[in-house]
Amino acid sequence: MHEIKEECGVFGICSTQMQDVAGTVYYGLFALQHRGQESCGIVVNDDGLFRSYRDNGLVNDVFTRPVLDTLGQGSMAIGHNRYSTTGSGDRSNAQPLVVNHHKGRMALAHNGNIVNAYELRKELEMNGSIFHSTSDTEVIAYVITKARIACGSIEEAILRAMDRIEGAYSLLVMSPQKMIAVRDPHGFRPLCYGRREDGSFIVASESCALDAVGASYVRDIEPGEVMVFQGGRVTSLQQHCKEKPHRICIFEYLYFARPDSIIEGKEVHTARRKAGALLAMQYPVDADVVIGVPDSGLDAAIGYAEQSGIPYGMGFIKNKYIGRTFIAPGQKNREDKVRIKLNVIRHTVKDKRVVLVDDSVVRGTTITRIVELVRSAGAREVHVMSSAPMFTDACYYGVDVDSKENLIACQCGGDLVKIAATVGADSIGYLDRDALHMLLGNKPKEGYCAACFGCGYPTAVPTGDKSRFETRISEEDAQKADEDYERYLRD
Amino acid sequence: MHEIKEECGVFGICSTQMQDVAGTVYYGLFALQHRGQESCGIVVNDDGLFRSYRDNGLVNDVFTRPVLDTLGQGSMAIGHNRYSTTGSGDRSNAQPLVVNHHKGRMALAHNGNIVNAYELRKELEMNGSIFHSTSDTEVIAYVITKARIACGSIEEAILRAMDRIEGAYSLLVMSPQKMIAVRDPHGFRPLCYGRREDGSFIVASESCALDAVGASYVRDIEPGEVMVFQGGRVTSLQQHCKEKPHRICIFEYLYFARPDSIIEGKEVHTARRKAGALLAMQYPVDADVVIGVPDSGLDAAIGYAEQSGIPYGMGFIKNKYIGRTFIAPGQKNREDKVRIKLNVIRHTVKDKRVVLVDDSVVRGTTITRIVELVRSAGAREVHVMSSAPMFTDACYYGVDVDSKENLIACQCGGDLVKIAATVGADSIGYLDRDALHMLLGNKPKEGYCAACFGCGYPTAVPTGDKSRFETRISEEDAQKADEDYERYLRD
Amino acid sequence: MHEIKEECGVFGICSTQMQDVAGTVYYGLFALQHRGQESCGIVVNDDGLFRSYRDNGLVNDVFTRPVLDTLGQGSMAIGHNRYSTTGSGDRSNAQPLVVNHHKGRMALAHNGNIVNAYELRKELEMNGSIFHSTSDTEVIAYVITKARIACGSIEEAILRAMDRIEGAYSLLVMSPQKMIAVRDPHGFRPLCYGRREDGSFIVASESCALDAVGASYVRDIEPGEVMVFQGGRVTSLQQHCKEKPHRICIFEYLYFARPDSIIEGKEVHTARRKAGALLAMQYPVDADVVIGVPDSGLDAAIGYAEQSGIPYGMGFIKNKYIGRTFIAPGQKNREDKVRIKLNVIRHTVKDKRVVLVDDSVVRGTTITRIVELVRSAGAREVHVMSSAPMFTDACYYGVDVDSKENLIACQCGGDLVKIAATVGADSIGYLDRDALHMLLGNKPKEGYCAACFGCGYPTAVPTGDKSRFETRISEEDAQKADEDYERYLRD
Amino acid sequence: MHEIKEECGVFGICSTQMQDVAGTVYYGLFALQHRGQESCGIVVNDDGLFRSYRDNGLVNDVFTRPVLDTLGQGSMAIGHNRYSTTGSGDRSNAQPLVVNHHKGRMALAHNGNIVNAYELRKELEMNGSIFHSTSDTEVIAYVITKARIACGSIEEAILRAMDRIEGAYSLLVMSPQKMIAVRDPHGFRPLCYGRREDGSFIVASESCALDAVGASYVRDIEPGEVMVFQGGRVTSLQQHCKEKPHRICIFEYLYFARPDSIIEGKEVHTARRKAGALLAMQYPVDADVVIGVPDSGLDAAIGYAEQSGIPYGMGFIKNKYIGRTFIAPGQKNREDKVRIKLNVIRHTVKDKRVVLVDDSVVRGTTITRIVELVRSAGAREVHVMSSAPMFTDACYYGVDVDSKENLIACQCGGDLVKIAATVGADSIGYLDRDALHMLLGNKPKEGYCAACFGCGYPTAVPTGDKSRFETRISEEDAQKADEDYERYLRD
Repeated sequence: MHEIKEECGVFGICSTQMQDVAGTVYYGLFALQHRGQESCGIVVNDDGLFRSYRDNGLVNDVFTRPVLDTLGQGSMAIGHNRYSTTGSGDRSNAQPLVVNHHKGRMALAHNGNIVNAYELRKELEMNGSIFHSTSDTEVIAYVITKARIACGSIEEAILRAMDRIEGAYSLLVMSPQKMIAVRDPHGFRPLCYGRREDGSFIVASESCALDAVGASYVRDIEPGEVMVFQGGRVTSLQQHCKEKPHRICIFEYLYFARPDSIIEGKEVHTARRKAGALLAMQYPVDADVVIGVPDSGLDAAIGYAEQSGIPYGMGFIKNKYIGRTFIAPGQKNREDKVRIKLNVIRHTVKDKRVVLVDDSVVRGTTITRIVELVRSAGAREVHVMSSAPMFTDACYYGVDVDSKENLIACQCGGDLVKIAATVGADSIGYLDRDALHMLLGNKPKEGYCAACFGCGYPTAVPTGDKSRFETRISEEDAQKADEDYERYLRD
Repeated sequence: MHEIKEECGVFGICSTQMQDVAGTVYYGLFALQHRGQESCGIVVNDDGLFRSYRDNGLVNDVFTRPVLDTLGQGSMAIGHNRYSTTGSGDRSNAQPLVVNHHKGRMALAHNGNIVNAYELRKELEMNGSIFHSTSDTEVIAYVITKARIACGSIEEAILRAMDRIEGAYSLLVMSPQKMIAVRDPHGFRPLCYGRREDGSFIVASESCALDAVGASYVRDIEPGEVMVFQGGRVTSLQQHCKEKPHRICIFEYLYFARPDSIIEGKEVHTARRKAGALLAMQYPVDADVVIGVPDSGLDAAIGYAEQSGIPYGMGFIKNKYIGRTFIAPGQKNREDKVRIKLNVIRHTVKDKRVVLVDDSVVRGTTITRIVELVRSAGAREVHVMSSAPMFTDACYYGVDVDSKENLIACQCGGDLVKIAATVGADSIGYLDRDALHMLLGNKPKEGYCAACFGCGYPTAVPTGDKSRFETRISEEDAQKADEDYERYLRD
Repeated sequence: MHEIKEECGVFGICSTQMQDVAGTVYYGLFALQHRGQESCGIVVNDDGLFRSYRDNGLVNDVFTRPVLDTLGQGSMAIGHNRYSTTGSGDRSNAQPLVVNHHKGRMALAHNGNIVNAYELRKELEMNGSIFHSTSDTEVIAYVITKARIACGSIEEAILRAMDRIEGAYSLLVMSPQKMIAVRDPHGFRPLCYGRREDGSFIVASESCALDAVGASYVRDIEPGEVMVFQGGRVTSLQQHCKEKPHRICIFEYLYFARPDSIIEGKEVHTARRKAGALLAMQYPVDADVVIGVPDSGLDAAIGYAEQSGIPYGMGFIKNKYIGRTFIAPGQKNREDKVRIKLNVIRHTVKDKRVVLVDDSVVRGTTITRIVELVRSAGAREVHVMSSAPMFTDACYYGVDVDSKENLIACQCGGDLVKIAATVGADSIGYLDRDALHMLLGNKPKEGYCAACFGCGYPTAVPTGDKSRFETRISEEDAQKADEDYERYLRD
Repeated sequence: MHEIKEECGVFGICSTQMQDVAGTVYYGLFALQHRGQESCGIVVNDDGLFRSYRDNGLVNDVFTRPVLDTLGQGSMAIGHNRYSTTGSGDRSNAQPLVVNHHKGRMALAHNGNIVNAYELRKELEMNGSIFHSTSDTEVIAYVITKARIACGSIEEAILRAMDRIEGAYSLLVMSPQKMIAVRDPHGFRPLCYGRREDGSFIVASESCALDAVGASYVRDIEPGEVMVFQGGRVTSLQQHCKEKPHRICIFEYLYFARPDSIIEGKEVHTARRKAGALLAMQYPVDADVVIGVPDSGLDAAIGYAEQSGIPYGMGFIKNKYIGRTFIAPGQKNREDKVRIKLNVIRHTVKDKRVVLVDDSVVRGTTITRIVELVRSAGAREVHVMSSAPMFTDACYYGVDVDSKENLIACQCGGDLVKIAATVGADSIGYLDRDALHMLLGNKPKEGYCAACFGCGYPTAVPTGDKSRFETRISEEDAQKADEDYERYLRD
């Protein structure tokens, strides 16, 4: 699924005493690094004074020890990992956002996508507001600030702002006195909280970040819920909780989230194994070995193997030293570059009929090269299994699905034989979109969002012209495919 | 005068064709580096699309070749050098500021200080505005944007905004179509423009930056003038030109500006030589040699030598490799550190009666060490001459004069004998504040601002509580003296 | 096995035409990164002129695009990855070594350890030789150079030098005209060669590097063989081939080499799976799931699962973003730090009896923490299986096995019950050292080296006092355990 | 003289107690930075253990605080600044050199050039010696090491080695127990020592480095002298002292050394002022102002002004922020680039007849551009004065004078009218080579070396073919002029 952009991750801590909260956020963001790798930031609340640092880069590149030292001690802190589509030089969209308003300071970290952002922004601008960035987060900050004029407290202002904001948002807001966690009424993106033995509250996009800082998972923030953390207390405001059907993004389970995370009570690894098992039932193949594409195809491969009885094998070695600084010198073609990252373990596939499981098949370019690798290592047959259904529609809730004309499923009209021929496989199978609810223990179809798989949008979708917010220059578009591929190699 | 913070520099180019405008701004900012060394930035206007880069650091550290390459070609660009009092990690105050508003984008680069910034900000916040930074520049951007709602053009909005903004501002504003240069009605800070042979207009804080990019100086922007550059044309709007007395900062001539710059028709070097000559008349000394403290005391030293007939000598060698990365290891005391930067040329001072000229004497700590150096090299007498008068008052127009209790002139009650004893000199002289007008060719005293020397403020001064805009944490204050000293060593 | 230091990797290319040989070596070293992560280097032979670059750091940190560009084109190049025990500031031991001698230049890249290095060095020094480094490689360079005086060719000099040098060495030598691959008569360390479609010869420590550059594996260099590559020809000199029993290091199969490499005709992954299968036979356990410690315990875990019939499960998620720059802020204890790198997939182990397979157990500190992780995730029983036998003796052939007093097997007198109690496991099993030959297809025990497992040394072992070559300062020794642990976390 | 390469600088400290010797060397090298800017290094002697760090770059770029921290405390340390003609990636020539030999370790830092290096190296190689670098320093290390076999002490070995080594060398040798300063019998390069109040001995290429570390100058090391520092004692060995005529390089006074240094009892600044005064007598001009090209033309300009009675003026402002990272974007021609670095102070030269003093005129390209600058600022006449005589011959003692065909004096056959026309001046004058002795207080002509000015070589000159030691690739030669010019701009 590496051709789909990762989304953002948020993390916060609210303690009763001064401590190294920046260090805790560092560990938390590091555990959430898979959710966004372009930029990151931390804001420390030191008794009402905010100290912040944001930059492009991975958590452990941006937050060197001297940088962490300048952030100092505090009683609260929030952080953010971001995937950005703008050029590397532009740090103005990095989060958390820190703004000053009539009641003081406020910091925001946001994961999601607002569907009426254009309308809200237009309205604000007509009143003379200025925007420093093109991000939804700044729009949210404005709507809260405007609401605040008439409200006695920040949480009231947030509740009122939620009346105006539509779409997907899991939000951390920090005021001089409080840390507030907010999840939109549909609950598109995950958000949970936990507690550490020292009494600190921890909020994170995924539970794996709680584990990383030694906190115990308490529960998910409910869709529509506003949780206010202050000192050692937590207050839940549930005015917006029941107003919309709950719609957790199914693709969080299939690709985004880390396998060891638990979202709405379901372990991601288990959901993926079930996806593999469902594929084995849906597309039984007479084969000798099941292998997964590392890292995100491995869980489903084990599920397929267990269900089918075909032995699970280690099919690939992934070079673990590939990182951001990897360059690709020379006139090598792309097939060679895949080989830099992945190499086949010959014995596993040689003279075998192979089931090759990946998390998804989007454009088909990467899987085509991987099928070639497996064949050139001597496999007799290669059967590709995608644990995600076919992508057919755009996502408006924070996932950068490729445009329709690039989706192999659309190009081939959904014809499996044609797709298999295109990617060079003997056969191909996609998880049936009607089977998705089984991943989550027979959750009703209204309980999750699978709009990108053609299951319908739970909200109105944006109509406004977003083009004027677009900062990417058009020449860059041509380079996009190349850059995405390079990113895949480095990931 | 190294104990006084430098101010900002602005630079812009408006061409009729696409070209490497970022490269031109790079050279221009480099020539204005002495006006601000903490951060810098460039915004390129590529047919209405803005590409920008800002970071902490010197121009040639921030703008590496890859960074300049990402800025690409354009028909206009503006840039800014900034001296910032906030911590090194905080880039949010770096300029030019780029904002989005209802009519599109706008970039601003500002040199100066707004005296009613607090009131304006308070008023804006009460209407729900949010601020990302603590800078005056954001306030200016807001006031212009609000005015724009009722105005047909950006220049009209600027003219209207000037009714509201009080204080010192030399401003470059860039819209998708125009570059606009603005100088406040008092004209506290310099701003001039020139033209290059390719027809491009260049605007810069000082004329030395015009020289650096091969442009010919045309004239200074007049106090209160708004000049609009678009394509190959320039339009002057003079509504605010005559409304206030003109008040160019005299300290620009004495310390800030580069000696090769021409401000309001007067060459800085010449003004400094005159200051030296005036000192020679005011404080005649029976001496053998006149030496200047490099670099900014040299001009006045030559002037003193010429007027007095005492030979000019080269008194010091300054280590030219001192830079930002210079560290000061070990348990050395400060006297040793001065020796790292400056060394006396013994032959020049040995057994001599020495006149030692510096641009100013603020706290007195640095000059004390320099006098020691000269004495330890064998000087028989050391007479200190300061080409700036005694500092006695705060500046509200963009210069960070030290607080009163640190000023040696205040500590010693203006008693020259006491000051001389404190710094270890045989005698000391400060240029008489009543002689300042002679530096500028007998300009009337109303023609310049010398408020910091006790000559009275040309405007109302701020009364509002600025403390909530203060981001510097209090512990850092203790380190301030040390850091300033380190900065002096590196400069 | 992360508590055992990795060894070095060598890579070379000899082409018939000028090309981007540095780029090829870059890819090759990148594929061999697991063999040494402290420093790396490349030497390009451009028609007899040598251009080289060496530095501390990973391949993709050291070889940025500008650095590769300065190396330029050539017809030959060799490279080296190194694990260094000296401080990070000391680059003088980085390889390849380039020396000038009476016949011109010579570059050497070496993997191994010379047992009579001390004697050779002493003898050379008594004749007035000077040494720039403490490495064996410089000794080898000297012995070849001295031999060269009486020899007509570099290969003759190498053959003669092999009479004097004892121990483990897989060597690449580059002269202005030739690239020469050498493997010691025992053949302790692997070395193989292949060919690319453009006719270039490739030599590499492991076959995975041939795959990475698109070369086909031809065969291993034989123990004692000297292969001379020049232009499009290859010549094999076999004078030393049969003089000693062949002794490939068994630990290359168990830990060092990449699973996709083929050494002496045996695939590493397969050998590890066999180790797992043998463990299942040797230590049958009544359990519910078999999990491996990523990455090097996974192969054997699959083997154990297959043989035992107990299901294989994915037990851990490893944070793939851990890298060299990862810092560990705060006062966290070590248990927390393990959690930063590894997290348990709860569903896999909860309420289960778990077989936990790792590649080896050396000090026991890391496995103790992992067992705790698994238990805290709810495992009912944890049975540890080590696919390497118990370490009992030092290695003199290039592996930095820990000192005896730190080995848990030695501390516990080889008592499995005691070891299990120490690491907190319900039981523990180590592969029987008498079963090792089965990993390699019933190879006779004389066919490999397992000296570190108490199977006897194939050569005389060093007696000389090596202390004077030691550059590590003694205070550092105290920090060693900490640093090793940090390294494990980053790896 | 910026078209002539700077030479090296050495610095050492020998204390009686453990202290931050690396910090002292850091300050010392920083004061000697003008003698070499390509690479630098420090070796600390911690009770016989050597810790070293060397890299390309300026002292304050290479020696960051963490690097200095790794060097730790010691009782002795030596350091080196180097100008290197090889590519930036090649650090193998960086000094001090550290070697291991039969009696232990030895570190060397060398300033100079050995004229029989080729013969010595050839002889050593024929005995099987290998060389890691192309530097003379490694040859010296070998000759000392070979001599050591038959000598009881390191100082005896050095005395014996001096019988074999011919040419220019100011040397610091550090053994586990001693620091030894050596100056060749001709005494081409300066070397002096001093003492600090804590009893430490300091040795440095120039006395300005003694000042920088708070040491008092004691005296110059005599030509041929070997001074042994150990603990608190110093021993002078003078066997080689009287064997050759003393020949201090006159160009040290004219350009290399810092004006505040004292060499053989003469202050450099004073020598330069005398050069200016001599020029005024030799080439009297009817002019209005005397200006110097910063920085190294200023001293002589003052001397010219004093002698002639023509007023001294400040002619230029040099941008002090130019540094290593300065890039020159865009298609600007060179004339523009000079303007980036230097700007004329118009008032000083406008409508004036100007005497323009520079330290030397080599190729003439830079002075041509500077004359243009002065003319374009309105000067009526420009008379150029070079305080160095015409360069006519190569230097074999450590100065990289340009090749004959590039020297403007040679191109124009020494015809002053022709040279003036070439550089665009109204007239030009060079200090008469027969007047050089007057700079040093009527020293006899045998007392200094002025071989490069056509005054004859004091030693035999090299005949051997040095080409095989040449690592610079030929394509680079084409870029040389450009690089030199860039270097000038940055300097």
